This record gives sequence, C-alpha cells and structure tokens, in this order.
Amino acid sequence: MTDPVVTDPVLTYALGQEPRLIAALKALVACPSVGADPAMAQGMEDARQLVESRLTAMGFRNCQRLTPVDGSGEPAIYGERLDAPGKPTILVYAHYDVQPSDPLEKWDSPPFEAVERNGRLYGRGISDDKAPMLIALDTLAAFVAVDGKLPINVKLLIEGEEETGSPSLPKILETHGALLSADAVLSADGARWRPDLVALNIGSRGNAGLEVRVQTAAQDLHSGRYGGIVANPLHVLSGLIASLHDAQGHIAAAGFYDGVTEPTQAERDEIAAIPFDQDQTFSAIGASPYGEAGYSSLERLWMRPTVEVNGMWGGYTGAGSKTVIPNEAFAKLTMRLVPGQDPQRAKQAVMDHFQAQLPPEATLEFSGHRGQGGAYAVPAQHPLLGAAVAALEQTTGQTPLKVRIGASLPLTEIVARVLGLDTVMFSFALSDENFHAPNEFFRLSSIPEGLAAWVQILREIAALSPADFAPYRRK
Amino acid sequence: MTDPVVTDPVLTYALGQEPRLIAALKALVACPSVGADPAMAQGMEDARQLVESRLTAMGFRNCQRLTPVDGSGEPAIYGERLDAPGKPTILVYAHYDVQPSDPLEKWDSPPFEAVERNGRLYGRGISDDKAPMLIALDTLAAFVAVDGKLPINVKLLIEGEEETGSPSLPKILETHGALLSADAVLSADGARWRPDLVALNIGSRGNAGLEVRVQTAAQDLHSGRYGGIVANPLHVLSGLIASLHDAQGHIAAAGFYDGVTEPTQAERDEIAAIPFDQDQTFSAIGASPYGEAGYSSLERLWMRPTVEVNGMWGGYTGAGSKTVIPNEAFAKLTMRLVPGQDPQRAKQAVMDHFQAQLPPEATLEFSGHRGQGGAYAVPAQHPLLGAAVAALEQTTGQTPLKVRIGASLPLTEIVARVLGLDTVMFSFALSDENFHAPNEFFRLSSIPEGLAAWVQILREIAALSPADFAPYRRK
Repeated sequence: MTDPVVTDPVLTYALGQEPRLIAALKALVACPSVGADPAMAQGMEDARQLVESRLTAMGFRNCQRLTPVDGSGEPAIYGERLDAPGKPTILVYAHYDVQPSDPLEKWDSPPFEAVERNGRLYGRGISDDKAPMLIALDTLAAFVAVDGKLPINVKLLIEGEEETGSPSLPKILETHGALLSADAVLSADGARWRPDLVALNIGSRGNAGLEVRVQTAAQDLHSGRYGGIVANPLHVLSGLIASLHDAQGHIAAAGFYDGVTEPTQAERDEIAAIPFDQDQTFSAIGASPYGEAGYSSLERLWMRPTVEVNGMWGGYTGAGSKTVIPNEAFAKLTMRLVPGQDPQRAKQAVMDHFQAQLPPEATLEFSGHRGQGGAYAVPAQHPLLGAAVAALEQTTGQTPLKVRIGASLPLTEIVARVLGLDTVMFSFALSDENFHAPNEFFRLSSIPEGLAAWVQILREIAALSPADFAPYRRK
Repeated sequence: MTDPVVTDPVLTYALGQEPRLIAALKALVACPSVGADPAMAQGMEDARQLVESRLTAMGFRNCQRLTPVDGSGEPAIYGERLDAPGKPTILVYAHYDVQPSDPLEKWDSPPFEAVERNGRLYGRGISDDKAPMLIALDTLAAFVAVDGKLPINVKLLIEGEEETGSPSLPKILETHGALLSADAVLSADGARWRPDLVALNIGSRGNAGLEVRVQTAAQDLHSGRYGGIVANPLHVLSGLIASLHDAQGHIAAAGFYDGVTEPTQAERDEIAAIPFDQDQTFSAIGASPYGEAGYSSLERLWMRPTVEVNGMWGGYTGAGSKTVIPNEAFAKLTMRLVPGQDPQRAKQAVMDHFQAQLPPEATLEFSGHRGQGGAYAVPAQHPLLGAAVAALEQTTGQTPLKVRIGASLPLTEIVARVLGLDTVMFSFALSDENFHAPNEFFRLSSIPEGLAAWVQILREIAALSPADFAPYRRK
C-alpha cells in the first residue's frame, strides 16, 4: 500500500486546504436551502450563489443555471473543465438542496449553523450532501492549483431538487443532453454504508410518493351532536393505512409486487456474508427489528419494496382538547422500489387499493405526486466501478465490499433512462449521520478520507480511455 | 294562549333592551376566551371582567370568583340576588369560555368579531354559549329594572372550563357547596334541538377523553435507510384506531359497553315518533348516514356511546414531501357515554384495548386526560322540568317534545353527583349553529324567543315552593 499523503502532491495540497474547506462548509450550511418549503427560496438562492462563485474561482467554464425549457423548478448548476482531450469525460453530480429541519425542537444546536462537537460538524444537509460535495469540489480545485488543469474532463451538475424527488431532472437532462454528454456519472451524493467497513454502493431502491386526502363531510362537526351518525375521516384514513400491510408485513395492495423478483440463493448468501451487527444497528436508533416475514434485515432493506406514511394529520392538534369530528384527514406516503418495479404502476396499485378499501361514506383524493424513479444497479464490470474499487484499495488498503442502499438516488435511474449512462456513488458521508432527521452531522475525519479517495479516483479514470466506457453507453 | 309581548311588562322592557343586548354580545365575542389555549389567557380575563361588571350593574351581590381550594384552573364567576324569601332558589348556569377557532382559514369572517349576515350573528362561542348566557342575564336585569327585584332567588354560576371538560367544577362545587346550595339548576347552555320543533332536552351523553402517543424509535429515521426494517408509528397508531370499531360499527374494546342498557321498545317507539328528516340532516352537513348497525340515527345519537379521534398527527406535515419515518405519532380521542357507563371504566377499556393490540415493536403512552362525566337524564316529574314545559307552552303555544342530545353537559352529571341537584337545560341556541366548527352563528330571532321563555319560566318557578323540590334534592 502506498502512502498517498506523502507521494501525491495534489492530495498534499488538498489536505492543506482543509481549514478553508471547513469555512466554506459552514458558509454553505448557513444557507437554509430547503427546496420543499417555498418560504426558504432565499436560502436556495444563497446556496446557488456560493456554489457558483466557487466554480468560477476554480476556473470552471461555461457556468450556467440549467432549467427545463418551460423554466419551472429549481435550477441545477452547471460548469465544466474539459482539460484532457482523449481522456474520459465524467459528469460529477451533487445537490445543493437539503431536507426540511423540523422537528426543530429536537435539534441540540440550530440546524442552519454548523457547530462542531466531538469531531463532528452538526447542521441540516451537512452530510446530505454539502460536505461530500465540497470534498469533490476541493479535489478538483487541488488539481487545478497544483497541475494547472484536471487529469480528465469534468462536467459538474449540482442539482436543486434532489430532496423533493428530482421532478425537473429528466427534463433538464433531455433539454441539455448535448451539454451534459459524458462517459459516465460520478456522484458525490449517496453515502458510505458504515464507519467500520470499506464498501461501495452498487444499487439503490427507487421511489414514488403522493398525498392522500379523505373527506367525510362538508365541514368539521361537533363530536357530541354528530358522534355516532357520521364517518370520521381519521378513522377511515387509519383503516386505509392499516390495510396496507398484512399480518406478515407484506404489502396488501394487489399488483404492487408486479415485476419484483425474489432474491436468488446466491444473492441471499452474498448478503448473509456481509458483517451486520443487528443488535448494534437497532440499539443505536432505539428501535426493535421489524419487517416482512421471511427476509433478513439486509434483504428487507436492499431487496424488498416498502410503503411508508411519512406524515399524517387531521382534526385538532393544538394544546388541550377539542371535541370535533374533523371533515378531512391527510397522509403523505412514499414507497421504496426494487429492480423490476415500475414506479407508476406500484403507486397506482396503492391508489387502487385505497379506493377499493374506501367505505361509501368517504371520498378520496390523491395529490402531491413526487418525482419518482425506479431502482438502479451499476453493471458489475463497469470501468468507473473498477476505478472506484481501485481508488479505495489504494487509499484504504482494503478491497471494498459491494453493498446496496435502501435509499433512492433518483439521479441514477434518471441518468440511465435519459442519458443512457451509468452512475457510481462515491460519497464520503456515512449512513449513520442522521440524514433527514434532527442533529444531522458529518465526521471531520471523513474529509481527509474523502479527499484522498477523490484524488485517487481521478487518477484511476485518467488511466482509462473513452473506449473503455463505450460498451456501457446506451445512447 | 296569552300574548306575552302585550301582557308582561318585564318582557316588554326586556325586548326594548335588545339593541343593548346585541352590543354587549359583540363586546363579549370580541374577547377570545379560548380556555384550551394558554396563549388566550387575556381573552379569558377580558370575558370575566365583562360578565362581572354586568352582574354588578344588575345589583347582584356577593360577587366573587370561585376556584378550588388549591387555586388552579379557570375561575367560575358567582353572584346572587336572594330577593324572594320563601320562594325557590335556582342556580342559573352558563359558561364564558369558548372552543378554539381553528381551522381559521375556513371562517368567512374573523371568529372574534361578531358579524351580522342574513339575520345571524357569526362568531366563535356566540351560540355556545355567549348569546344564550346574555338572554338569561338580560331577563334577570329586566325583572330588576321593572320590579326592583327578582320573583325568585337566583344564584349565578358562570364557568370558565366547560369547553375543556370542566376539570375544576367538581372541586368548585365541593369547596363552595354552602354558597351554591339551591333547589335546582337551570342552564342557559345546552341548545334547542331544531328550529322547526319546540322541544326540551331531558338527557345528555357523558364524555371522557385522552391523548395517545405511540413510539417506535428514539428519533426520526430516513425512509430509505430504514424503510422495511423498523416499525412506523403512524402505521401502528392507524392500526390501533382501525381496530377500535368492528365492521358493524360496534366498539371493539372489551368492557366498553359495561353497564349500557339496550333501548327498550317503548323508548325506540318514542324516538321513532319524533319528526326527523334524515335526508335534510345529512345533506346540510355534506355527509352520508353512517353508524352502528341495528340502530336508527337518533338512537345512535342519543342512546349509544361513541369513541372518536378528534385529532391525529405525526411525521412531516408541511409543504412538499419528506422521506422520513417518524419515531412517534399522536392522537386525541374523546368518547360519548350513555346512562349506565362509568366514564373511568369506559376510558380504561379503550386504553386496555390499545395496549392489547399494540405490536411488540412499539410503546404506548396515555396523557391529556380530560375532565370526564357520565350521562345524565332529568327525572320526568321534576318541578323545574314542569316549569320549563309550561313556559314553552305559554310562549310558543305548543307542548314541547322531550328529546335528548348527543353532546355532553358535564355540569348536569357533576351537579347531580356533588350537589345532589337536577338540571334543566334551557338554552336558546339551536343545534345547527356550527358549535365547535368554523362559522359558528346565532339567530337574531332567537333573542326575543329566549327572553319571552326566560321571563315566563321565572314566573312559573315563582309559583312553586321549595317543598316542591325537596323530593328531588338528594343531599
């Protein structure tokens, strides 16, 4: 094993810039770029401007905001350095938007102020994915500073709608297909699985989502004057949600599993061989193992689809009590999908199930359809996957385990579908860093690990040629 | 039938004061006396001060605020005029607190500004029960103005916790039992059933309530990284709520119906004889008939208990979507009880049911226990009921139908239990006036109807003696 700190001048430079990286990260976390909340539009714009000024300072060219032709949605940021004729062209992906910060009261420090505690920086979006994005950008900046150029051609695509399901991304890719053409996609988003294992993500689940509204009357009613003679929409909606899973944890919506293949014995054996401490996993989150009968936890997480209620509400939810029968009730649902499932078909199965279960006293409306995408898996022999394996072997001395994630990276499926390209996820977040939850954090120790790996993967890609990627380019 | 407008000088005076009554009502509605919301404490205090200055102006004596010995809770207002030695003493009841006004966006005019439209005054608490309370007070004021005194002895008790389940009332009655001693209670709260029928309420359902919290993990979790391997508290709570009723609409909690007697055939016949336009009732609220199999709508409403979820929430409920598995979910429940049910026992049955249905991956907590009370029915031969029947016959020319209400008047059960007294409900609200819902209103035409009936019932009581009440006084 080589010692990259000593032998690679670009990495040496990048590591020397760590204090600047941390300062830039704090400034970026201070932009509340919550794309789901229209009230946070200024935070989105502030984040865009920080990223754009950084790209300009790094000598990126042709910088622009990409929006679909109709101009709607949050723009993605584009910039390129095509410094290496004859070398591969890699589209590097990240996103500048973050999840909402509520429930605010559960944060130990303000979500939009990066605060260091015990070797960790806390803040909304710091791990998903502002720190991983800056690790990628600082790597590129270090090559430019030391060598005056990049060893490969790089196009950057930094999206603003990842946390809301990337609704505009397909159109952005379609509209700007020529600009974005590349040999493969390398994502700074996606997360390493565990601190104790060197691993590469080779697949992710798809997703889809919608909002459900149940109505039973024209207005709220007094629970004494009408209690017993009208349907309660919270009872109705509870019944619909309770009917989604059977007693074995299988999803009861007819057609939901269409296209899903059972894991093969080889796949099950491969998964069973991965070190996984179930007790530690569940005690860390204060929960008990749970799920579909007949599958292990990792099989449930990687190979089986889900439907989850992410939020539900109706009636009086303030202080004290109110004797009301509400006239409407709401739920937000998302599903996670596995290879073989069509997102629209899976979502339709859930909607049809609700409609079929609905009692005659209630009406049902669907809205809030999220951007959706199928599951994705990178081909086992893909050259960018090989480069990622080699980079991790070089910088960690270990051969990475190939794992999947239960989460979705809509990018991977969209990029495959629209641009015909494969994506390797090369984030240096860790999956225990409270993404989408209070007290999200990023380990400071992941910064040098990430810089080393990103320097090395660029060198590995520089040793490849565009012809190596040609068999995998489907468009 | 006599014509009370011409023959009764007290009523003539009272009717002449209507503009003043309406001005006083507008001032009272402008006090946001929402007892459930600690942020509205000033509205509660403002309402108290308006009522107290009115009592002082009417020559009421011994005016004071009644709180339990420990001093907690919203005080009740007390005042008395013991003008008629040898005549019955009546405790007149009303309440100055109102329901919360949300959902605010469904109001056509501001809830705490009484606005007149089409012969109705709109505002939160105007019908429940600020206008009915002022009708009672103006009647008493008219006797004082015309005769210089009341024809009977009156003690006023104006409560501040009716809408939150009267949690302090039992202690107030116990603590101030001697001060409040009377022959019977006449309530300005309670509501007439329908505009098209002259009726008297002879019974009300009891109630109890609590809040439920389900927890499945120590913190919110990402629906991709944990979806499929942890229990979702919204699914668990939905399952608990869905399990509360069976397919026939019966409540499935074992022991909940303990003590409930089936309506007799005579009772069912009596109820069936009451004119009730089911189509009109349900089309007015935009709902469909619904309820427990084997009972008519009126039987469901008057003779059968209920459990209703008044509010439910958990997870992300803001704009857009958030792919979270929440770690906790909440519901507020209240139940309506019928004669024979013990409120504590009925509530315990629901709690036991939830605990028994709870999957092992979740924990359950109960809190927010409301003030509670059993159902109540006034004895058929009670002299105050007789006076009420006579007053309505005199002022409407019709014999009132004896009906029940599905709602609760905690007062009736508490007064019976603590003071051993019976209560007649003599409100001039109408039950379609959007109590506890947006756009609550009070018909202006109910003011002269109410003043006439209240003048007359005081005259009817004046024709009775305390001895007539003695057989019904249980303490």
